Amino acid sequence: MSILVVGTVALDTVQTPFGKVKNALGGSASYSALSASFFSKVKLSSIVGSDFPQEFITLFQRRGIDTEGLDIKKGKTFRWSGFYSYDLNTAQTLKTELNLLSHFNPDISGDYQDAKFVLLANISPHVQLEVIRQLKGPRLIVCDTMNYWIEHEQKPLKQVIKKSDILILNNSEARELTQESNLIKAGKALLALGVRLVIVKKGEYGCSLFSRGSSFSIPAYLLENVLDPTGAGDTFAGGFLGYLAACPKITESSFKAAIVIGTIMSSYVVEDFSLNRLNKLKKEDIRNRFEAFQRMTNFSNRINLRMRV
Amino acid sequence: MSILVVGTVALDTVQTPFGKVKNALGGSASYSALSASFFSKVKLSSIVGSDFPQEFITLFQRRGIDTEGLDIKKGKTFRWSGFYSYDLNTAQTLKTELNLLSHFNPDISGDYQDAKFVLLANISPHVQLEVIRQLKGPRLIVCDTMNYWIEHEQKPLKQVIKKSDILILNNSEARELTQESNLIKAGKALLALGVRLVIVKKGEYGCSLFSRGSSFSIPAYLLENVLDPTGAGDTFAGGFLGYLAACPKITESSFKAAIVIGTIMSSYVVEDFSLNRLNKLKKEDIRNRFEAFQRMTNFSNRINLRMRV
Repeated sequence: MSILVVGTVALDTVQTPFGKVKNALGGSASYSALSASFFSKVKLSSIVGSDFPQEFITLFQRRGIDTEGLDIKKGKTFRWSGFYSYDLNTAQTLKTELNLLSHFNPDISGDYQDAKFVLLANISPHVQLEVIRQLKGPRLIVCDTMNYWIEHEQKPLKQVIKKSDILILNNSEARELTQESNLIKAGKALLALGVRLVIVKKGEYGCSLFSRGSSFSIPAYLLENVLDPTGAGDTFAGGFLGYLAACPKITESSFKAAIVIGTIMSSYVVEDFSLNRLNKLKKEDIRNRFEAFQRMTNFSNRINLRMRV
Repeated sequence: MSILVVGTVALDTVQTPFGKVKNALGGSASYSALSASFFSKVKLSSIVGSDFPQEFITLFQRRGIDTEGLDIKKGKTFRWSGFYSYDLNTAQTLKTELNLLSHFNPDISGDYQDAKFVLLANISPHVQLEVIRQLKGPRLIVCDTMNYWIEHEQKPLKQVIKKSDILILNNSEARELTQESNLIKAGKALLALGVRLVIVKKGEYGCSLFSRGSSFSIPAYLLENVLDPTGAGDTFAGGFLGYLAACPKITESSFKAAIVIGTIMSSYVVEDFSLNRLNKLKKEDIRNRFEAFQRMTNFSNRINLRMRV
């Protein structure tokens, strides 16, 4: 099954204690689309300017990503500039230049409109709503977001959530949106907004999946060398839905495996700047780390509890 | 196999947003011993004063804990008073009265001396060293500690670690002791201090186990209602070693199961103040939560990676 990914495509300037890149490929849709492309055919919808390098479009196309929905307008591409200190968990934004992004009016037509699996990557909830309005019978809508929209556009964001099946956000966003410090209570409050599943990401501590009546948690894949955490969440979301869309049948096990896949994909993306690591990734890399992650997290269910009481 | 638990026995006064207790049973050895007693026979070594309530000694004895090594001296028991705000991760100490604890000189003699499994629960490293000196051929020594000893008694603490097999500490302590922010690097630096295994606890985010060349991580058991986090780490350590000592053979799987048991026991202890919840715990409770934890964390190893690349 192919999936539709709508979000931002950006030129990022990023500095971390381990290096710097200037005008590198970035944006929520870029990370999500590239990550998903390892599992499903991806249709990309976003906007860039005439300054957007052809090599990045070629990069998408080499991964089989349909770029027909990448609107190339006269003007400047969305640019983001930020840095990370040794605490790699939080980005400090230096500059955000929306440029053409502020005029993005997604045109979901043709075979884009029939997409069954839709990832609304992090972008204005107004754009996300506009995409949902144009879809014809989607099977599964996944919505990602960020603290900015929770703080400035909470009303349309809640409409997006209500119309989505799965919500992905991080623990501080979950707490901020629900005003609940306890994660189970926050999960319940998010489900009450109208989604079937909530995925709460906890950065270097893994993630939890909440549905009505149950939860599932995995740790992160521990890494010794993280160069640039930009796009980790977008890559998670892309891997998650890309894997899910490729499942012949979607069961509870598929959701569990899909968050593991999301974890693996994001563990790779942070090993280098921009999309450099994902772009070089091989099938064997994913399989090897998936299997390593199993060994590093699963424990036997044949344990004997020898209890004195 | 029986285990020897050496640490503090205290009278705790604790306030959290959910209630308060005054002069309740506390201390590292109390939590560790009670937790371990569900799996192994426990010999307790600590010191209390003539003000220590008989009912607490009876509580230990009802759980089959050998209190012969609980030195009852004329004077006052060690007292700790603290509170937690809604961020239940960090205790604010209001008052610490060492009292008789400052004169504790453990006498490990008789059948205490032959203990094969030893838990050096959180207490001064000088006391821990004195215990190690008196042991006759221990099979496995587990050492727990806290930030205070890292800051004020790092030299003797490192001697304790060098003489131990397993070190248990939390992530901020691991980072403080090694001056490494990355957890894998911190784990390696701790192993280099001379232990075979390092367990890093991450509070509500679970824990990781490091040995030379491999690591293993589990999330925490998510709880909706935490009343009092006091003693969670001590309860983890007690459950961990209590379970391990009951294994007919100690393998890699035993260590994995033991940190799950530690997680389960600490998930129970925080559901009420002091040792109230552990004291009422049933065999079935442990088994049920162990099985629930498996469902909430293990994913299938029969996943098919349907990859396009």
